[in-house]
Amino acid sequence: MPVFTEHSSSSRDLRVLPSFAPPLPRLAPPFKPEPKIGERYEVVVVGAGPAGLMQSLLLSRYGLNDASLLCVDAKPSTLKSGQADGVQPRTLEVFKTLGISTEIENEACQMWQFAFWNPATDPKKVIERTAVVPEVIPAARFKYEATIHQGRIERIMETDLLRYSERGILRNTRVLDVSLDEEGDDEFPVLVSMATDGIVKVIRTKHLVGADGAHSVVRRCMGLPLEGESLDHIWGVVDMVAETDFPDIRRRCAIHSPAGSIMIIPRERISTGEYLTRLYVQVPEDVAPACDLVPGGGEGVRPDDARQRRSKITLEGILKQAADAIQPYSLRPKDGAVDWWAAYQIGQRVSPEFIVKDSKGAARVFITGDACHTHSPKAGQGMNVSMMDSYNLAWKLMYHINGLAAQPTCSNKPTLLLETYQTERHQIAQQLIDFDRKFSTMFSGEMATTEGLMQEELQQAFELNNGFTSGCGVEYPENMLVVRDEDNINSPSLIQGTDYLSGILRPGRRLLNVRLLRHADGWQRDIHDDLPSTGRFRIMCLTSADLLDQNSISAQTLEAVTLLAAQFPKSVVEQIILHPKLHRSFEWDDIPACVKQEAEMRFYDGSVLDDAYTIYGVDPARGVLLVVRPDGYVGVVASLDDVQRVDRYLKSCIQTVSGN
Amino acid sequence: MPVFTEHSSSSRDLRVLPSFAPPLPRLAPPFKPEPKIGERYEVVVVGAGPAGLMQSLLLSRYGLNDASLLCVDAKPSTLKSGQADGVQPRTLEVFKTLGISTEIENEACQMWQFAFWNPATDPKKVIERTAVVPEVIPAARFKYEATIHQGRIERIMETDLLRYSERGILRNTRVLDVSLDEEGDDEFPVLVSMATDGIVKVIRTKHLVGADGAHSVVRRCMGLPLEGESLDHIWGVVDMVAETDFPDIRRRCAIHSPAGSIMIIPRERISTGEYLTRLYVQVPEDVAPACDLVPGGGEGVRPDDARQRRSKITLEGILKQAADAIQPYSLRPKDGAVDWWAAYQIGQRVSPEFIVKDSKGAARVFITGDACHTHSPKAGQGMNVSMMDSYNLAWKLMYHINGLAAQPTCSNKPTLLLETYQTERHQIAQQLIDFDRKFSTMFSGEMATTEGLMQEELQQAFELNNGFTSGCGVEYPENMLVVRDEDNINSPSLIQGTDYLSGILRPGRRLLNVRLLRHADGWQRDIHDDLPSTGRFRIMCLTSADLLDQNSISAQTLEAVTLLAAQFPKSVVEQIILHPKLHRSFEWDDIPACVKQEAEMRFYDGSVLDDAYTIYGVDPARGVLLVVRPDGYVGVVASLDDVQRVDRYLKSCIQTVSGN
Repeated sequence: MPVFTEHSSSSRDLRVLPSFAPPLPRLAPPFKPEPKIGERYEVVVVGAGPAGLMQSLLLSRYGLNDASLLCVDAKPSTLKSGQADGVQPRTLEVFKTLGISTEIENEACQMWQFAFWNPATDPKKVIERTAVVPEVIPAARFKYEATIHQGRIERIMETDLLRYSERGILRNTRVLDVSLDEEGDDEFPVLVSMATDGIVKVIRTKHLVGADGAHSVVRRCMGLPLEGESLDHIWGVVDMVAETDFPDIRRRCAIHSPAGSIMIIPRERISTGEYLTRLYVQVPEDVAPACDLVPGGGEGVRPDDARQRRSKITLEGILKQAADAIQPYSLRPKDGAVDWWAAYQIGQRVSPEFIVKDSKGAARVFITGDACHTHSPKAGQGMNVSMMDSYNLAWKLMYHINGLAAQPTCSNKPTLLLETYQTERHQIAQQLIDFDRKFSTMFSGEMATTEGLMQEELQQAFELNNGFTSGCGVEYPENMLVVRDEDNINSPSLIQGTDYLSGILRPGRRLLNVRLLRHADGWQRDIHDDLPSTGRFRIMCLTSADLLDQNSISAQTLEAVTLLAAQFPKSVVEQIILHPKLHRSFEWDDIPACVKQEAEMRFYDGSVLDDAYTIYGVDPARGVLLVVRPDGYVGVVASLDDVQRVDRYLKSCIQTVSGN
Repeated sequence: MPVFTEHSSSSRDLRVLPSFAPPLPRLAPPFKPEPKIGERYEVVVVGAGPAGLMQSLLLSRYGLNDASLLCVDAKPSTLKSGQADGVQPRTLEVFKTLGISTEIENEACQMWQFAFWNPATDPKKVIERTAVVPEVIPAARFKYEATIHQGRIERIMETDLLRYSERGILRNTRVLDVSLDEEGDDEFPVLVSMATDGIVKVIRTKHLVGADGAHSVVRRCMGLPLEGESLDHIWGVVDMVAETDFPDIRRRCAIHSPAGSIMIIPRERISTGEYLTRLYVQVPEDVAPACDLVPGGGEGVRPDDARQRRSKITLEGILKQAADAIQPYSLRPKDGAVDWWAAYQIGQRVSPEFIVKDSKGAARVFITGDACHTHSPKAGQGMNVSMMDSYNLAWKLMYHINGLAAQPTCSNKPTLLLETYQTERHQIAQQLIDFDRKFSTMFSGEMATTEGLMQEELQQAFELNNGFTSGCGVEYPENMLVVRDEDNINSPSLIQGTDYLSGILRPGRRLLNVRLLRHADGWQRDIHDDLPSTGRFRIMCLTSADLLDQNSISAQTLEAVTLLAAQFPKSVVEQIILHPKLHRSFEWDDIPACVKQEAEMRFYDGSVLDDAYTIYGVDPARGVLLVVRPDGYVGVVASLDDVQRVDRYLKSCIQTVSGN
């Protein structure tokens, strides 16, 4: 259009860039590096695999700059020959709230189905498909597991990190030693000795996160054991473009044949236009007895025994075994070339402690990811659980550093909020180990011999545990951040139903995404898009059907919630408001003014797209209040007339600005 | 997991990067720059606004490298103070097929509803809402219009361009003159004189695309007029954070009050967390008579008259008029600050020719976007129609350059395919101009005086033309690329229904997205994701319900289509196959082998998610064949037993490799 007069403000120029996440406010005094005293940080992250990258990315987005935060990695560049490939639906939900899910959504392989193949009733057919089940069983925003090269996941996170951090990852940097030295400097008690390109230096930090993998130097230096067992089955894993007439090559398959077991994982399309396939193949040999617990975090295999057996593993052997097990179908790498192959032994081990405290009881060193739990890869858990460790820890650490965490009332509990990392994630790690042991055992050599029952059990185990493995049904135990109904016992029917996998509200589980119609503009939105990973708490009010009555309980609750939210540092507590089907249409004037003031763009009709009240198990006649934690988990549920319950919950987590 | 043996191929290293679009094959001899002869290109694009960037991006993705393609722009950087802000649903569909829609999906404002406000029946209320209608009426993958800063759209395209082109846009480069000089070099007859940072040089190119805006130098040098009229109403436009009690500030609104007319366009959220609002305000004054056609592409306003009136326009005047027209509500910029403001005059003009040919009839110079059509901004069309010009032209130009276009049989028609750019896009430009004239007139000063009828008419005009303005109902006229039913008259019921906005198949309209279940893996997919903008033709076969019979017409058709597709250069013609609800489940073995060979990952059940057959108007008992052009438009529809019709269509477009 031909414009003849034009005036522009300077802030407009920046609008061409993608949005940045708003940093969290800081009540604590600003951090000032003092080079004269020595190199010091607020947080050092060791390791830039999925766990370390997620940790660094979140802390950067929450507001830690390069002066406060250092992330180091021993490798010279991002991972090239990565092993993990599965991105679970809950991980995708989290990536989505970070705005970094698109490349995975568009370019990963989406596994929607899991097929089970077993010895055929007609022996001439050898094997037959006995079931096809959905890959993702709980209600979820993404109904599939994505598979894509681990290096790509890391590159996606690093690219986003570089929007917030000029330095990014300090590479070629090997951590040599980590120790606590409170006498030297009790504010920066963690001493880290590291070598960058061979040049050694010692730095200090307030906190350190060891995300440095199964052979974690941090874990070793802190003297934490890795407890568990190694079942000692040897498996081969191959990525290749498959040439096959097997009909389910594009589905995830568990195949048990008289000749052995294979798992097929379809993978992403590559630049040739072809599709990768991953095979897990059990290497045939006598089943060795399970090794005992190996203390000290070694690999859990007796060196002599293992070395001899390892030397037997060849690509040809793996491919031969796969070809045998998939008979009568054929299966070989196209043009004889494989993309990557490896061999491994199943072992499940977990550290009993994820946190190391100083002498005053303050949490100083954390371990995350493979550094605190290792297990087999076949359930596609490793990368996911590791990143979710970071997702659980990062906001707590940030609240602690920024002075946003509520000051404990007893002087001997300085880091209550931080301790919930151990409470919540150690339980998950233990569940992971237990599931993996069960799933792997079923899938291993015993399988072919006991048949029938075991075959069904594998499928049942998959289905039963899918809430956990998809990440969408994970439930944290009761703790200061997860307050259940024990003191709310007089309102037994506040939440109707117990099918939490379908979305029924439950403290300790993530809030299910629902689609809602926004009042202000008719925008059909996903509620998860109002839960971006910006470190904020959200009070959600599902009002009752009396919203249009001026003196209704809903109106009173909304006003009380607004007063409550104002007691916390600005922007830290947001409001989301839903209404059920009402008896008439209405305008802003018909509802309490605080709705438009506090939640104009987060006020929804919860009845016309998804039926949010039914999905969440909420009676529209009663409504409900809940708090969603910064990581998307429900923290507490209360009746509309019990704002005090929300008040107590939030004040136990977040420092008020008024001090009350 | 602890791996002890690991081997990786080198190609794996590249897998961490986002995918690249596969270039089109080239039958023409490779282009070799010969610096001794002079600087020469295959295509020069002038202008890096939305039209020029889309042109350059597509040509780069189709395979033109920096040696072949040069894009220049006079400005020193991407647009800062851009004017356009609307991204229509069809444009979003195209962005999605390019993999660049995400940032818009996530961060633009989504306009889902259009509210009409008119003088109230109760005069005390002054104005009242008379209707709320959906912003997007036709069936579409995206049910909203997105609004976001034009500079950001350009930055998104430029970022993607830089993945394919090292040079990107050559900026600070002003084109001084363009002329045809066949005598000097008839293969590179377009002479371009340009100045980069003031240094002048002359280069040659086979083709030139003038995407250099309303004041196009290319258009002027080629002597093309811009015909039409300027209605001469003056409008002010303001972007600001609004402080208002107007209830529909987050909806698109057309407000007519006794005090004047405003249009409200909600805009994206900015870094403060606040939301922008755009206002179009009619500047009050006597309505001046429409100017006559102004030849030569001037601004269409008599300089003396206009200059005097322009000087009256101030921000304060615009805001005062907006505040008056929205009474009894209040409306002002928050903190008194506006983001951007401008004034413009409505004018609709179009060039009669979009192509300039050389003496042999070969199309050499093209104009696109504002260079060939200008109009008012209020319908949110400009940026969209401009980019769709490029989307229409780019693949045709690439087919021509790469020798993929079918050689014409008559020697006097060397550039049949290229000429369809004029045929198709000039008609769209004319429709745009006609619509804009009607819509703008209705919305302008006449409105408030005639009331009633006109108010309804504006809403009707919006609804009636939404197919066009959304881009989703655009229909190209019959031409070599759009073959309708005239010679197919014996199959009158091949396509049932005529409600093309709902998705009924129609040559000349874009194929509607549907969701389908993929046979190979149970992936629930959008068919548009199988129509990426890679320049390929697609033969879609909606088989009939007899697919499982070995000698069925469906089976014969699939085999014939496979033979046909093989006659064209490798990868240029892809197959997509759907089946209707069948009477039993089936395996790959039950259907023709060519389905798995040619379309393993593009073979769908068209009945279980969306009912594709009903949506497309296809009888499952009969099925249908169709060709989807590289730009997503349906080219031809044929009965399953008439593969010849598809054969003729494709051979009129694409050069066969066997020559038959």
